[in-house]
Amino acid sequence: MFASPRWQAALPTLLHIDASVGGESSLSRRLSRDFVEAWVGQAPDTRVLRRDLAAVPPPYVDQTWIAAVSTAADARTPEMNDVLAASDELIGELEAADVIVLGTPMYNWGMPARLKAWVDQIVRIGRTFSFDLARGDFPLEPLLSGKALVLLTSAGEFGFEPGGVREGMNHLAPHVATLQPYLGICDTYHVGIEYEEFGDDRHRASMAAAAARIPELAATVAGRLRAG
Amino acid sequence: MFASPRWQAALPTLLHIDASVGGESSLSRRLSRDFVEAWVGQAPDTRVLRRDLAAVPPPYVDQTWIAAVSTAADARTPEMNDVLAASDELIGELEAADVIVLGTPMYNWGMPARLKAWVDQIVRIGRTFSFDLARGDFPLEPLLSGKALVLLTSAGEFGFEPGGVREGMNHLAPHVATLQPYLGICDTYHVGIEYEEFGDDRHRASMAAAAARIPELAATVAGRLRAG
Repeated sequence: MFASPRWQAALPTLLHIDASVGGESSLSRRLSRDFVEAWVGQAPDTRVLRRDLAAVPPPYVDQTWIAAVSTAADARTPEMNDVLAASDELIGELEAADVIVLGTPMYNWGMPARLKAWVDQIVRIGRTFSFDLARGDFPLEPLLSGKALVLLTSAGEFGFEPGGVREGMNHLAPHVATLQPYLGICDTYHVGIEYEEFGDDRHRASMAAAAARIPELAATVAGRLRAG
Repeated sequence: MFASPRWQAALPTLLHIDASVGGESSLSRRLSRDFVEAWVGQAPDTRVLRRDLAAVPPPYVDQTWIAAVSTAADARTPEMNDVLAASDELIGELEAADVIVLGTPMYNWGMPARLKAWVDQIVRIGRTFSFDLARGDFPLEPLLSGKALVLLTSAGEFGFEPGGVREGMNHLAPHVATLQPYLGICDTYHVGIEYEEFGDDRHRASMAAAAARIPELAATVAGRLRAG
């Protein structure tokens, strides 16, 4: 079904991440679940990796983590290796993924702390970026590439798009866009639900519009990856 | 020493928060420590509250937390009260503070996860904001006010200011600015160190410039609060 060299050699891998702590009533979880179902419906051989940040929150990075990532692998202490175990696991999932499906609410105009903790475990020298001062004022370069991100969000308020009344208060999707290269992401596809705290017709219209976009989005992203 | 009605009635209170996990070598910790020392030197009666997010990370909010804040205080279960204990403690410190001194590094172009977890515990309906759909499209209103924030940052890179080469990658100070009213902050004073990962003359100049601003900033903020 998938014709790209990468997908000829192996099953496509989808990493399904959820950051909401809202449980069954979470709208971002509903979007991500619906997307994964639509995807698997058309690509049943997909290997799906699951990372539920509500069920198993990533540990915060700490001083030992900082020391460990700055130490050559063969010189790390057992304590350093212990503290990097979660980072190794999360990066391994990211490396394996062709498509990342990230369902996340906007909490206090940015990422939930659990999602930021995932980012802080993932963005790591020697694993997801290299650093060389010979590059001048932009010494970081990403080490991963070729992935697609499907970003599925929910927000209590509205108007966070460019030109919207709350554009300047949006610290979620723009932050993810900055991180994109360091997660190996070449293309991001974003669908969001707004107006949740209003519970009005605008909210119902936003939910319906998002739901309607999910199947077409699954086809679009699959087509892009098939084309390689 | 302090002439405002608030400070006539009680000692001024300073809340000293650090988010870096860099330990003794942390530049944001050095700035916040130097600021607090300068402040206490001129206002020795200040009550200093300490919140070290590296030593005691805030718990992540979870599904029980969401349910608890949406439940009237006298209807909460013991489990709900347990899960809100950290939030109650952190909000209590914020309520007490006249000045908040926040030392934080930029991690992956935004707040450290520990700092976002602090924010997520603090911004809480009925405690730091009220919600009323009768207000129309802007139903949130802050409940706290009158505080000054001294934001002391460090960044590996540079150019995050308006017009700078990395302006679009700055998801730290602009996010704090969005949160400002919900933390009861009327004025924010920001001093930052940049270029840390370059370790060059520009970094040394940035450190020296920041250090030079600390004593005058302590005098400025105290003067503003004295004026009420």
